[in-house]
Amino acid sequence: MIAVAAAVLSLAEILQAAPAADWRDIEPENTLYLAIPGGRVVIELAPAYAPANVAAVKKLVREGYFDGAAIIRSQDNYVVQWARAEDDPRAKAMAAVKLKPEFWRVMDGGLPFTKLGYVDTYAPEVGFSAGFPVARDPRSRETWLVHCYGSVGVGRDNAADSGNGAELYAVIGQSPRNLDRNITLVGRVVQGIEKLSVMPRGSGPMGFYEKPAQWTPIASTRVAADVPAAERVELQALRTESATFKTVVASRASRKEAWFKEPVGKIGVCNVPLPVRVKPK
Amino acid sequence: MIAVAAAVLSLAEILQAAPAADWRDIEPENTLYLAIPGGRVVIELAPAYAPANVAAVKKLVREGYFDGAAIIRSQDNYVVQWARAEDDPRAKAMAAVKLKPEFWRVMDGGLPFTKLGYVDTYAPEVGFSAGFPVARDPRSRETWLVHCYGSVGVGRDNAADSGNGAELYAVIGQSPRNLDRNITLVGRVVQGIEKLSVMPRGSGPMGFYEKPAQWTPIASTRVAADVPAAERVELQALRTESATFKTVVASRASRKEAWFKEPVGKIGVCNVPLPVRVKPK
Repeated sequence: MIAVAAAVLSLAEILQAAPAADWRDIEPENTLYLAIPGGRVVIELAPAYAPANVAAVKKLVREGYFDGAAIIRSQDNYVVQWARAEDDPRAKAMAAVKLKPEFWRVMDGGLPFTKLGYVDTYAPEVGFSAGFPVARDPRSRETWLVHCYGSVGVGRDNAADSGNGAELYAVIGQSPRNLDRNITLVGRVVQGIEKLSVMPRGSGPMGFYEKPAQWTPIASTRVAADVPAAERVELQALRTESATFKTVVASRASRKEAWFKEPVGKIGVCNVPLPVRVKPK
Repeated sequence: MIAVAAAVLSLAEILQAAPAADWRDIEPENTLYLAIPGGRVVIELAPAYAPANVAAVKKLVREGYFDGAAIIRSQDNYVVQWARAEDDPRAKAMAAVKLKPEFWRVMDGGLPFTKLGYVDTYAPEVGFSAGFPVARDPRSRETWLVHCYGSVGVGRDNAADSGNGAELYAVIGQSPRNLDRNITLVGRVVQGIEKLSVMPRGSGPMGFYEKPAQWTPIASTRVAADVPAAERVELQALRTESATFKTVVASRASRKEAWFKEPVGKIGVCNVPLPVRVKPK
């Protein structure tokens, strides 16, 4: 079978050899489950980078705000976005709610950072922090989550403080890095992004669906910690501070498989896989 | 309505102001039409960068090779791929056909090049050439098409010369730039990529569908020049050598719309829009 690249195998081998300590449990308290007709989408939240926004999203989730929400936008090579209907009373009540933007935060020795070590078009320094792709500017001492495929953020209107957690989006295309530092990211999809990325594209401006009948309903959104243990999926993420992760990055920067003729020896921050697995029994 | 970014409007304004001379007709002789159930996908071929492979693909198209082919692979955040069924006699006949790889070519004063001017993780220099995103290395004097969203290439097996045009792929995710210089790109989707990017993902290894029943049929593929004029769509692409394109790049690197709080002042080669329109009457 002719393939573009036999991409999966050697990564699988590296991961299989990883010691258990190189994996961390994804905390149920920082995990969201979205129930869509195609199945479950799992999001890991990043409170270290957006504490107020993550707290706001979790509060809304726990109030049932997203039960009966819908995917209202699917813009090709950009984002899918979900919310309650604009004319819904709860949506109207949220429309005026302001929240502190968390577009970036101050660098802090307590934040893990694994530097990628290759130049980036957009930021002075890029790497990974506790499982998330991040950038930082050592001069200004600012750091921020970056927009990669699967990143999840808080939609907003023109005012910087108009995003309040009531509308969320996930990236489904080329990393829109010009959104970095312009909008608050709260996490990333760790399972099920392929259920969002195949949503038919909306035909309205910016990929909004023109008719509510085209929306994809979200039956419920739950914090995983609130879900009975038997209904949870226990996920683990490869620690981005681990030796195994360094091997993953190196192997992806210089692919050794027979298929590759000219390993480039470099890799972009949004091209590095961030492995997630179901926790072994 | 809360939006992630009101992206479209100011680009539309720039394009509306463009003089007619800044647009070029996309040549019917270098255009492919794929007829899939969702409609027509239009590909512009790039013979300047892959003359032998483009010629091979067009020859196969004109022999009806892709009539009755199917989308056999849809790998999330990577590629869709199409071909005839592996056990089809014509596919079997093609399996052993070798073709010169055209992973890169020698730089040449005759090739237009508009330098982007921002650093790139993967290549010494990136920019655009007659409508296609490209990279080059002034030291080795090599230049090549780069893998961006919508790029179309020739699938191959492990041998560099095993790609012969009988299997094609299109990028539907984060630009897989490590494929650059490892496989022959022949063009890019200029209309209808959103019909390919929403294909349900295949559940087999590398996103291959596990059952032929899951394939999406391609009723026909045609060179646009072979289609009656009344059935063609006359497309124009913004000249990447034009002043308007420079304005597009600058406006996208530093977004001026009210929504953007911190324009980054930089942009990646795969984040620059390559505008295409239906030719005005």
